[in-house]
Amino acid sequence: MIIGGVAAGMSAAARLRRLDGNAHITVIERSGNISFANCGLPYHVGGVIEQREALLLQSPQAIKARFDIDVFVGTEATAINREAHTVTVREVSTGATRELPYDKLVLAPGASPVHPPLPGIERALGLRNVEDVDAIVAAVPAARSAVVIGGGFIGVEMAENLVHRGLQVSLVEATAQVMAPLDPEMVAPVHAILRENGVDLRLGVAVTSIGEGEVTLADGSTLPGDLVIAAIGVKPESGLAKEAGLELNERGGIVVDETFHTSDPDVFAVGDAVVKRDALDGSATLVPLAQTANLQGRRVADVIAGRDVQDRPVLGTAIVGIFGLQVASTGWNEKRLVVAGRKHRIIHTHPAQHAGYYPGAQQMALKLLVDAETDEILGAQGVGPDGVDKRIDVIATAMTGGLAASDLAELELAYAPQFGSAKDPVNMLGFVAENLATGLSRNIQWHELAAAQEAGATLLDVRTPDEYEAGRIPGAVLLPVDELRDRIDELPEGELVVHCAVGIRAHIAAQILAAAGRPGVRNLDGGYKTWIAGTGQ
Amino acid sequence: MIIGGVAAGMSAAARLRRLDGNAHITVIERSGNISFANCGLPYHVGGVIEQREALLLQSPQAIKARFDIDVFVGTEATAINREAHTVTVREVSTGATRELPYDKLVLAPGASPVHPPLPGIERALGLRNVEDVDAIVAAVPAARSAVVIGGGFIGVEMAENLVHRGLQVSLVEATAQVMAPLDPEMVAPVHAILRENGVDLRLGVAVTSIGEGEVTLADGSTLPGDLVIAAIGVKPESGLAKEAGLELNERGGIVVDETFHTSDPDVFAVGDAVVKRDALDGSATLVPLAQTANLQGRRVADVIAGRDVQDRPVLGTAIVGIFGLQVASTGWNEKRLVVAGRKHRIIHTHPAQHAGYYPGAQQMALKLLVDAETDEILGAQGVGPDGVDKRIDVIATAMTGGLAASDLAELELAYAPQFGSAKDPVNMLGFVAENLATGLSRNIQWHELAAAQEAGATLLDVRTPDEYEAGRIPGAVLLPVDELRDRIDELPEGELVVHCAVGIRAHIAAQILAAAGRPGVRNLDGGYKTWIAGTGQ
Repeated sequence: MIIGGVAAGMSAAARLRRLDGNAHITVIERSGNISFANCGLPYHVGGVIEQREALLLQSPQAIKARFDIDVFVGTEATAINREAHTVTVREVSTGATRELPYDKLVLAPGASPVHPPLPGIERALGLRNVEDVDAIVAAVPAARSAVVIGGGFIGVEMAENLVHRGLQVSLVEATAQVMAPLDPEMVAPVHAILRENGVDLRLGVAVTSIGEGEVTLADGSTLPGDLVIAAIGVKPESGLAKEAGLELNERGGIVVDETFHTSDPDVFAVGDAVVKRDALDGSATLVPLAQTANLQGRRVADVIAGRDVQDRPVLGTAIVGIFGLQVASTGWNEKRLVVAGRKHRIIHTHPAQHAGYYPGAQQMALKLLVDAETDEILGAQGVGPDGVDKRIDVIATAMTGGLAASDLAELELAYAPQFGSAKDPVNMLGFVAENLATGLSRNIQWHELAAAQEAGATLLDVRTPDEYEAGRIPGAVLLPVDELRDRIDELPEGELVVHCAVGIRAHIAAQILAAAGRPGVRNLDGGYKTWIAGTGQ
Repeated sequence: MIIGGVAAGMSAAARLRRLDGNAHITVIERSGNISFANCGLPYHVGGVIEQREALLLQSPQAIKARFDIDVFVGTEATAINREAHTVTVREVSTGATRELPYDKLVLAPGASPVHPPLPGIERALGLRNVEDVDAIVAAVPAARSAVVIGGGFIGVEMAENLVHRGLQVSLVEATAQVMAPLDPEMVAPVHAILRENGVDLRLGVAVTSIGEGEVTLADGSTLPGDLVIAAIGVKPESGLAKEAGLELNERGGIVVDETFHTSDPDVFAVGDAVVKRDALDGSATLVPLAQTANLQGRRVADVIAGRDVQDRPVLGTAIVGIFGLQVASTGWNEKRLVVAGRKHRIIHTHPAQHAGYYPGAQQMALKLLVDAETDEILGAQGVGPDGVDKRIDVIATAMTGGLAASDLAELELAYAPQFGSAKDPVNMLGFVAENLATGLSRNIQWHELAAAQEAGATLLDVRTPDEYEAGRIPGAVLLPVDELRDRIDELPEGELVVHCAVGIRAHIAAQILAAAGRPGVRNLDGGYKTWIAGTGQ
């Protein structure tokens, strides 16, 4: 028996049938639908996915015909009776209960939206299943304004899709930034594109109450909100497991071993509700991602069928599209590395998605995080209009394959001018990583610059006079890279930091300075672009 | 001194300057330009890259200012005087010669178009540098028709771009298919899209002579050819190296060791002219790809500067766009594995580039080649309108990272509905690979089917009656997967092969049959789609 009929649950059921033609397989699903496209729900709100039917990938009837699996929708599991090896289920529409027996039980209950105890929270709509999207779609025509609470994946997707529907949309995020997987300097273009598209973005302020047609914030301001969406986050739906006495961790995740066994040998658990292991340090983590849920569903079926498989630790690769901007990440970010005290190197680049000489080249921002001692890749982030998905996927694959950051230099990626560059953005990250690892280059981060200047370092801006005039970093001295060889004598004694727009010319400048007897000059990583994004100047 | 000022040569020069601020660096380039966008040349012919200036990424003046490198364009190296450590150079415009000294010499001469000794071959234009593209651009306005000889990367790109210019274009390829890196069943959509766009594609027939305004083929037919492009292939431009007594291999490639030394310790060679090592078997190979040339240029500079680097063997990842179709490959193809006698498994899939429920989903064809004993990934091919580049890059990265085919199942790739699927096409390849590796599934290839049927196997078509009526494989018996459980008794004794449209329903059917006491049923790999593509029915 499988409780939960979406990503992890249905993957488990279908795989188990393929592995065991004779098992009696039952799926219990509380909502009215199974295998629905949960990652597509916001796009149906926005009308991007026009037909509601497109969200419904399978029906119980089709599953029965193809897989001989009994699916009960609109049916809630209310108790696991471990001794008796039964589950008590309740038909949602009638309230009728009955007991169903199991030999092996798989829990795939997923995660539910967090609804904090705010005054008026009952007015907020969550977004988890097709019924939720139906409620939002029904409410949109009468609404002129919406407030989305929470700037995570679902929050930004809902904000975009409600803008598509013509609503005046506010997005409230209690922390200083949306999209927590990104570091602050990487998220700047995300904030910008939300505002450019008319979203009233309120950062660093919490919602204090939800009234009729308006939402009040902690700073006393109010936002018009005929419609209020709670997208604050999700928590493991582990109440049933808890009541059954199964082990949970302190964040409410169901604890499982590497073969998905809970603390009961006949009860397995998979998907968003379970505690996973982090790929970098093995720590416990809750990663509510669809692909992980699907894979775990497949794997638990393998385990039950007696195949020799194990769960793997997770990187947490994720992506979201925001008004045409691709925002993706894998592994750890700088914030987390700092908290963990792990020594790291950081690389920012701003490459185009394909050859600059081919029409349509557009710049993206990439960030790579590297272990300072081992050159291990620890994480990556990317933001840009095109080609970010590919680079993050390549880096995630390199991490899984155990490639070092310097090895990215050597990757043979498919190049033609409309698809990449002879030196692909991923190769370029590898070049920089190798230069840092071998001591050829040194860099300094945007948030370290002010302290270096205060300590007496001179900042050289090696861009052109026009670029300098258009915008510069306080204290920067202009000295274009192509004049540097002839003007070395003008430079002051002491520490030097060089910068250009993105870091390439400054790298050349640093090497010119090294050859002229000024070794160890630091390059402002990511150049003026990253500094602007980070400082918000 | 560096001979050759394009990809490998200029990469070497610029990197060497960054590593050694004081070296005297000279670049000799026969054509009139350095660092030009050679992969963009066909697109300037077609007007996609409108401005000729966009092809010229650097000038000698700019290189001098930024890197203090002396560049001589329009200057041909005519002899290497190894004893004297000089190179004789000739100014192309005046014929004046002089000798330039070197301590270390880097040969980066590239590869030149093959012009076979056909009657009239002097009328054919090649495409290697900016002067060549100028000649073609000058000839286009007076031409109404063009014949492109050769169906490799440059041939198909030129065919497309000449169509863009309104010419009646024929493409003649002496072998049975264009794009030799692809296996025949994978190239079918490429042939189709060329023809759909008006290209008169002539396969399996050679050109016998090039006349005034027409080209004659071996089958006696003639093609209108006001303009004739020779894109038959390239050969290493190793004449200078040969005359200097440096070691070449039997195909004319300059032989180098893992640190790019030729047989003379003071002479290095990099790029399209040198012999490389194959990543799968270490054999000698000539891979004229821009990214490899660029990387080798960087690496030889590292070697000369005393850094501890080595050349790496090459996978040969490549891509081309053909009328909006992405065609990419990495590693070995089936043809080569068969010739080498390497035991392999083959997987064909037809996934969409992103979630099917999100608008714009379009099917691609993927092929994965796997070592039958070790599960090592040996190669991959992809053809489709979108997302092929990403999947081939991910697989190439997995190969470099030493991941097995089954490991592709576990890759965490960035998923949102507009970018991929919860079970990404790469994951799906891994699922199939794992099923084959563990013996859960067996498959049979399109070219093995007829022999299996002749040997008595029954072919079950488990699609719907409508699909069966629309087109079927000779001898196939219709039995829809959803009726299979109830109709097992109807099946004949003996070997069974199952197929559906792409292989997914047939996989389920095979598992149903196994559970019903018919184990070992083979699934026609890639289904009806791959069979049609391969047999050309």
